[in-house]
Amino acid sequence: MQIEELDRAYLFHPMTNLAAHEQNGPPLTIVEGHGATVTDSNGRDYLDAMAGLWCVNVGYSHPEMADALHAQASKLPYFHAFSSMGTELPALLSERLIRMAPVPMSKVFFGNSGSDANDTQAKLVWYYNNVLGRPEKKKIISRRRGYHGVTVLSGGLTGLKNLHDGFDLPLPMIRHVRPPHRLWERAPGQSDEEFSTALAAELETLILDEGPETVAAMIAEPVMAAGGVIVPPDTYFPKIQEVLDRYDVLLIADEVVNGFGRLGVPFGSDAVGMRPDLMTVAKGITSAYVPLSAVLVSEKVWQVLLEGSAKYGSFGHGYTYSAHPLAAAAAMANLDIIERDGLIAQVAENGAYLHELLRAEFGDHPNVGEIRGKGLMAALEFVESREPLRPFAAQGAFATAVTLHSREAGVITRALPEADTVSFSPPFVTTRDELERMVVGVRAGLDRAVEARRSAS
Amino acid sequence: MQIEELDRAYLFHPMTNLAAHEQNGPPLTIVEGHGATVTDSNGRDYLDAMAGLWCVNVGYSHPEMADALHAQASKLPYFHAFSSMGTELPALLSERLIRMAPVPMSKVFFGNSGSDANDTQAKLVWYYNNVLGRPEKKKIISRRRGYHGVTVLSGGLTGLKNLHDGFDLPLPMIRHVRPPHRLWERAPGQSDEEFSTALAAELETLILDEGPETVAAMIAEPVMAAGGVIVPPDTYFPKIQEVLDRYDVLLIADEVVNGFGRLGVPFGSDAVGMRPDLMTVAKGITSAYVPLSAVLVSEKVWQVLLEGSAKYGSFGHGYTYSAHPLAAAAAMANLDIIERDGLIAQVAENGAYLHELLRAEFGDHPNVGEIRGKGLMAALEFVESREPLRPFAAQGAFATAVTLHSREAGVITRALPEADTVSFSPPFVTTRDELERMVVGVRAGLDRAVEARRSAS
Repeated sequence: MQIEELDRAYLFHPMTNLAAHEQNGPPLTIVEGHGATVTDSNGRDYLDAMAGLWCVNVGYSHPEMADALHAQASKLPYFHAFSSMGTELPALLSERLIRMAPVPMSKVFFGNSGSDANDTQAKLVWYYNNVLGRPEKKKIISRRRGYHGVTVLSGGLTGLKNLHDGFDLPLPMIRHVRPPHRLWERAPGQSDEEFSTALAAELETLILDEGPETVAAMIAEPVMAAGGVIVPPDTYFPKIQEVLDRYDVLLIADEVVNGFGRLGVPFGSDAVGMRPDLMTVAKGITSAYVPLSAVLVSEKVWQVLLEGSAKYGSFGHGYTYSAHPLAAAAAMANLDIIERDGLIAQVAENGAYLHELLRAEFGDHPNVGEIRGKGLMAALEFVESREPLRPFAAQGAFATAVTLHSREAGVITRALPEADTVSFSPPFVTTRDELERMVVGVRAGLDRAVEARRSAS
Repeated sequence: MQIEELDRAYLFHPMTNLAAHEQNGPPLTIVEGHGATVTDSNGRDYLDAMAGLWCVNVGYSHPEMADALHAQASKLPYFHAFSSMGTELPALLSERLIRMAPVPMSKVFFGNSGSDANDTQAKLVWYYNNVLGRPEKKKIISRRRGYHGVTVLSGGLTGLKNLHDGFDLPLPMIRHVRPPHRLWERAPGQSDEEFSTALAAELETLILDEGPETVAAMIAEPVMAAGGVIVPPDTYFPKIQEVLDRYDVLLIADEVVNGFGRLGVPFGSDAVGMRPDLMTVAKGITSAYVPLSAVLVSEKVWQVLLEGSAKYGSFGHGYTYSAHPLAAAAAMANLDIIERDGLIAQVAENGAYLHELLRAEFGDHPNVGEIRGKGLMAALEFVESREPLRPFAAQGAFATAVTLHSREAGVITRALPEADTVSFSPPFVTTRDELERMVVGVRAGLDRAVEARRSAS
């Protein structure tokens, strides 16, 4: 059988319409990737404007990454870290992460994915409050459109309807508040400052309604990714943090997409003024070459976890692949490349250039309601009409059409859920020429989508 | 700083006493591994009788594994499978797994760890019953001593107290039944057959008490691993399965440790007569070189999931690293080695030899209450006295002492929780000479533990 036939027959795809896939199989099969370019089984090249899923930051098939994997797999491909057992790379990586962290952090717990790391965060927060003798303080607040994973716990933290329906999520201890999404959430005439004040007041009302003694933590991406590439107003997080501090509610920064330079600064928390007690990283930590996530724990939280040893004994949490040596080797090589090649500064510069290009190409387009983002992370939100502001009736269909037509034009991008939004998150190594071609490709996709809509009406 | 100092200062170890680690740091730092041998930072060699954590089946630093990783990382280190997107290796691997499966299976969903795969199982089971219009049928039955992971959901499925206390687990929809552990659970004079009948009757009583319309699934390892290497009586699973069938309760086989040859047959389900509707695999699928898990879904379940597309649209579950090409390449190379080198037959032969050695060395020892296992999976359970059967008062302390002394004798093994049990799960490539040395090392460890206990009393 052809690969496409095997895929259709046997592979249960993530985040896919199962019935449609059963019918059609994969639209393309990617067989190779180099830098910002991937190639399908017909030999056709595409610029990957999404770096996979916001993750292949150093680009595809970096020779130094392949060499680092070979070296580690030839020396110590795996050993565990249960019962205090040590290996070299995870120790070195944990020190490096603590040194890089945007706020003082104390310890690093490793996992395999952003999903399992946010699951770990919930367990840490509950354990923390159990040790402190506050068994009622367990609720976790998240935001609508926030993306925090897909496990039973973290899928509930995610604030997207499609990840809840059919799965009985979220679990009962999770609450959601409004996101700082100017286009749809800000009241007419409201300034950024007033909008932030309103959102912080809503958070405070929720905490008071629930009872502060029942609210343990809030989780938030500095700049939201899958929920729409939403950059908060400057004073949003300081105001939110003030409320959390008032009620002794921990703040968890989900840096899975933002972390390690995506915004042109090392971490999203730097960019938006978050001072988290706990941090989640994944994706960019290895540029996706090997699954790896990490939870960074502040000294304040760590001291309480330590106290727990007397009460609970051995800390009853940990993955077989926590502190995986091959994954840690991938992370060290990846961070070496980013550091040595000055890729974060390059993201800042090329990110500014990308936003210039987007404004020039789409700023006046009647179907572009907003151009958003920071660094090499951007989104176009499409609307049926700008004035008056009116979304498309069939949510998502237009953005999906844009991505399909963009792909025909040789550019892979992504339609984000619960909106008509198309996102950009190219590899850090993408050249200016490639950025230009990505924007041209998506413009061609938009033009064809507009045309198809006209001829259908 | 020395590696040990960095580890102590920055690494949050899984399944570790945090306060003790903060005090002492790692007991050793493993820097290299080849075949069944690992080497610490002082240049001392140890035979790893546990293959890491039941997982490095083809042995450490297999050159073909390193080459496969290098080749894939140089061609396509990553691409995603969201929105039907295809790559080659996951499609090939899914077909291979369906071909290998012990009972007919239809589709393969990939994740990163046994924990996330069992989390996926719960979501599949709930989605399945929602599609079927049975929103109340959601409870999942597991067994005490079962090990199914550590996420909020899967940590609750795990039937070990240390994984629940302090974490508010299990979640309310989870129930536990007694395990088929002859040594402690079988009534005096009960035959295997009577013991199995009693356990099946208890399961039925539980289902009837809960209401069959509320019970969705049961999860079970064919041969329990971390819970004590517990091989069920021959008729146990057939009797359990009869009860489940009677009340339309799905059976999930957790093959994370058993799968891919650990027992000397391809899967645990083959060995114990399970006919699961859903299967979880991980660990041995890549011999731990790259994190990977998979959920195998039967056609019966798949047809219902497909129906869900009309109601719920895109299936709102999936990991960034679901169907990871590098992980799939590691799995293909690993399965190639196992197949070509006839490692499963070798496990059967050498497993029989290991059990002979264990019986000869420990069969008459006054502190060995039971010698258990199958294939290259074995356990010694220590007791204070055999007749009358009496466990040690301070549970776990004796087994821990045995493992520490065995390590001094050059053999790494593991003390399992909620028992005084020491386990064996060596790499498939372990030679007979190495098996002999492992048994001799653990015997030396036992002798020293007995001696230490004598001189302390």
